[in-house]
Amino acid sequence: MRIYKILNNNAVIVRNAQQQEQVVMGCGLGFQKRPGDFLDKACVEKIFSLQEPGLQALLSELLQRIPTEIITASDHVICLARLKLPSLHDRIYLTLVDHFHFAIERRRQGIAISNLMLWDIQQLYPCEYDIGLESLKLIAQELDCQLPIDEAGFIALHLANAQLTGNMQITNQISLLMQEILQIVRLKMHIRLDENTLAFHRFVTHLKFLAQRLLSKQSLPTGDMALQEMVQNCYPQAWNCAMVISKHIEAHKHPKLSDAEIMYLGLHINRLHDRQAK
Amino acid sequence: MRIYKILNNNAVIVRNAQQQEQVVMGCGLGFQKRPGDFLDKACVEKIFSLQEPGLQALLSELLQRIPTEIITASDHVICLARLKLPSLHDRIYLTLVDHFHFAIERRRQGIAISNLMLWDIQQLYPCEYDIGLESLKLIAQELDCQLPIDEAGFIALHLANAQLTGNMQITNQISLLMQEILQIVRLKMHIRLDENTLAFHRFVTHLKFLAQRLLSKQSLPTGDMALQEMVQNCYPQAWNCAMVISKHIEAHKHPKLSDAEIMYLGLHINRLHDRQAK
Repeated sequence: MRIYKILNNNAVIVRNAQQQEQVVMGCGLGFQKRPGDFLDKACVEKIFSLQEPGLQALLSELLQRIPTEIITASDHVICLARLKLPSLHDRIYLTLVDHFHFAIERRRQGIAISNLMLWDIQQLYPCEYDIGLESLKLIAQELDCQLPIDEAGFIALHLANAQLTGNMQITNQISLLMQEILQIVRLKMHIRLDENTLAFHRFVTHLKFLAQRLLSKQSLPTGDMALQEMVQNCYPQAWNCAMVISKHIEAHKHPKLSDAEIMYLGLHINRLHDRQAK
Repeated sequence: MRIYKILNNNAVIVRNAQQQEQVVMGCGLGFQKRPGDFLDKACVEKIFSLQEPGLQALLSELLQRIPTEIITASDHVICLARLKLPSLHDRIYLTLVDHFHFAIERRRQGIAISNLMLWDIQQLYPCEYDIGLESLKLIAQELDCQLPIDEAGFIALHLANAQLTGNMQITNQISLLMQEILQIVRLKMHIRLDENTLAFHRFVTHLKFLAQRLLSKQSLPTGDMALQEMVQNCYPQAWNCAMVISKHIEAHKHPKLSDAEIMYLGLHINRLHDRQAK
């Protein structure tokens, strides 16, 4: 790195890789030097960077409020996470450091925040959730702060959102399969699906977990026969629609749906049909 | 602010409120001055701050990579959000700026990330979700980038997690009511609930939305009688348990459960009982 300007014997200005000015200080750093000369790195004691204006300064200030030990602990969590999630983007540093800072602050003030998505996260992002649990242990050891289990879910979400591949592919596959099933329901049941209804929401929640079970090759155990017969007899149109979906899924090389899955799907389709028709 | 050290006629060192050294530059700033003299603020042209060591530097660098226009647009979104969510913590600056940066980067690279929680978020955090939708419009106008609707869900989650009161209270109330209902099911059905099963997860998902409907004074429309009678006759134990829960809810000044709610609750309790008994 070359000297750009001499301030005095112990202080010079250089430009970093982004061509931003930096003040570098150290004993004798500027002594008998001229602009263009190389900086003697061994003499550097302090580096000052140009302060950002306005909002950028606010962001820096927010970061500076975070204690070093939280930053260090977050780094350890990220090292651990990278062993299992190799495509983790560097941005996870910002989100996790910020999250731990806030979570620990809340904990120390005795404020608890429930995570209503905890169970969903556990099912949809099992690997990230496990890392979340590990993180809580690590934070407890290093910072002497036992965060509630709800935080494992929040950590898992941050990890899931900071990945560039891997998880994202499964997420998108689930999403695609859900769209295909919705399209079959629209065509077979002759209904317009109103996305803003609770009924629609409950149906897509069911589909989401059905798709997740299919992709992870899980299946619901056999349901009870009484309910199954009732669905088949009382709601033939919904049952047939469920059968069409089942065939579509099989044709796309997914595992075959169990009878229980088809039954619950039929039940859900019928409920959706009733609600949307009203 | 007083001068701490003179570097030359145009550069001095001061200490900020946190007692950290800063290099201040400006024409004639140090001319005929001594340490302890007041800094002439009108002459300040540039301020340099001490560069943080190690990880703190990495965090700053991550922030510096974020374009100014994204920071400005995030600020506009936060101003909008604060009108509806007055208790929003300043940390939202860090999380939203980072989120938009990543989301826009992904969008420009043609990478789509589905949000599997979208519908849940929409139901559980309706106000935050609406702000999420508004944000997408604002981002489209200011940055000429149309983010997918899935991002409205992610934004809503960030907003929900950055609130100190308000939302948090409702979230915790829902969580508490769920715990109470689970306790009744344990006692009345004489089952040990295994939190790691899919059956348990499906049940708590149902409870979560039931609790949310109660707190927002919504109710499911009447269900069909055939299913209701079947549940009542075939699963009397589960039906009775649902009735006990209904009474508990009423006793705690929540709205009365509709017949449809009790029926679905009974159906879920029976399913949970069957799964857990196996």
